Amino acid sequence: MRDALVAAAFRLFLERGYEQTTIDDIVALAGVGRRSFFRYFPAKEGVVFPDHERCLAEMTAFLDAGARDADPVRRVCDAARTVLRMYAENPAFSVQRYHLTKKVPGLRAYELAVVWRYERALAGYLRTRFADGPDGTLRADVIAAAVVAAHNNALRGWLRSDGEGDANATVDHALRHVQTAFGSPPAPHEPPASPAPPTPITPPAAPAVASAEGGQDVVVVVARRGAPLWRVVQQVESALGGDPGAAGTW
Amino acid sequence: MRDALVAAAFRLFLERGYEQTTIDDIVALAGVGRRSFFRYFPAKEGVVFPDHERCLAEMTAFLDAGARDADPVRRVCDAARTVLRMYAENPAFSVQRYHLTKKVPGLRAYELAVVWRYERALAGYLRTRFADGPDGTLRADVIAAAVVAAHNNALRGWLRSDGEGDANATVDHALRHVQTAFGSPPAPHEPPASPAPPTPITPPAAPAVASAEGGQDVVVVVARRGAPLWRVVQQVESALGGDPGAAGTW
Repeated sequence: MRDALVAAAFRLFLERGYEQTTIDDIVALAGVGRRSFFRYFPAKEGVVFPDHERCLAEMTAFLDAGARDADPVRRVCDAARTVLRMYAENPAFSVQRYHLTKKVPGLRAYELAVVWRYERALAGYLRTRFADGPDGTLRADVIAAAVVAAHNNALRGWLRSDGEGDANATVDHALRHVQTAFGSPPAPHEPPASPAPPTPITPPAAPAVASAEGGQDVVVVVARRGAPLWRVVQQVESALGGDPGAAGTW
Repeated sequence: MRDALVAAAFRLFLERGYEQTTIDDIVALAGVGRRSFFRYFPAKEGVVFPDHERCLAEMTAFLDAGARDADPVRRVCDAARTVLRMYAENPAFSVQRYHLTKKVPGLRAYELAVVWRYERALAGYLRTRFADGPDGTLRADVIAAAVVAAHNNALRGWLRSDGEGDANATVDHALRHVQTAFGSPPAPHEPPASPAPPTPITPPAAPAVASAEGGQDVVVVVARRGAPLWRVVQQVESALGGDPGAAGTW
């Protein structure tokens, strides 16, 4: 009955517009009473986002299960993917809703409130994990916001393309960007490399990176003290190799 | 008359509650007609946040004026301070509103929509600045979200302390955190150091940083290829010096 209500609602929203559709119209088309509608949805906005409560509960459970996870930043990135999965389950429906939400300010406000709840769930987890470190709540709030922004940037791109393309790959790329920026350690399967002696090099004006002669295993970075950190990091990042999709994006 | 309406509204909100106060009550206490209210505020929520439109216009003008600013990340951090200034202009009023907003879900939703507009203004500026680089919109959205989250983390801390303490210092610290994470170059007054030759050092298992003998000007970083970027960056960051308050917080 829940699915029938959602289907009837979207048919009417598309035919006559969101504002012009009443709850009475929806229940009439679905062939049920008003009370049935309110059993499933607190208000008309609710039928537009029928799966967010379930998704938020899933995300919270996933975070609770990672209370001792070694990498909290990775955990919140993985948690964000719960939302992606919900959208990707039904691309046609997600794309329809995206266009509807863009047109109706009330739905946009509703969606912002939902996004805020996801962000607070992620931040709450990180605040607990960072509780003993310096600036714990600040770091938690900033990382949670960055994860949500990255996820939604990728999700919106996919929705704008009418659900074409690989949503998972797009979101992976965006989340890797955040993991790199906030210092998430690499995946445990990355093999440790054995060190080899470096060769002295002459310090240039800008930071320079050179592979040591006699091996690919060692990277030497020479930088002036006071050099901009961002420039040094850029060089180190590209020299260390790793995922080229993640490198150079910040 | 605008100020009189705001003062009357808040007196009533505090005395009898936000929901229980009508626009008619407000105009009666202020001694004006309903039309005057709507000349200044589109709805009852508007009187709770009377300065956001002005503040948003100020922020947008500040961003527009920085279309060629050398450091876009710093520019958006400075732009965010426009909001802080508005709150700090009248601490007692800001604290009152904070407590009111926490209690009224409708006001919370309204505030989220306002925050979203600030965030889009910052992201829009960064998107233009990053248009030619890789992942321009992703970087822009993530940094804008991080700036807003850092600013609001500090702002909320100050509001929770009833407006005691130095709001500027708290927000400065939070924004520095974002500037560090997203690779903002150092302040222009930092003197450039002249390079001196480095001394070869033996590569250890973990990345190592050493000042060159014969001078404090050069930093040599040796890292295994495949080493975690976050660990290398941590070392580079502390070796390059700079603000100890910003270092080591991510």
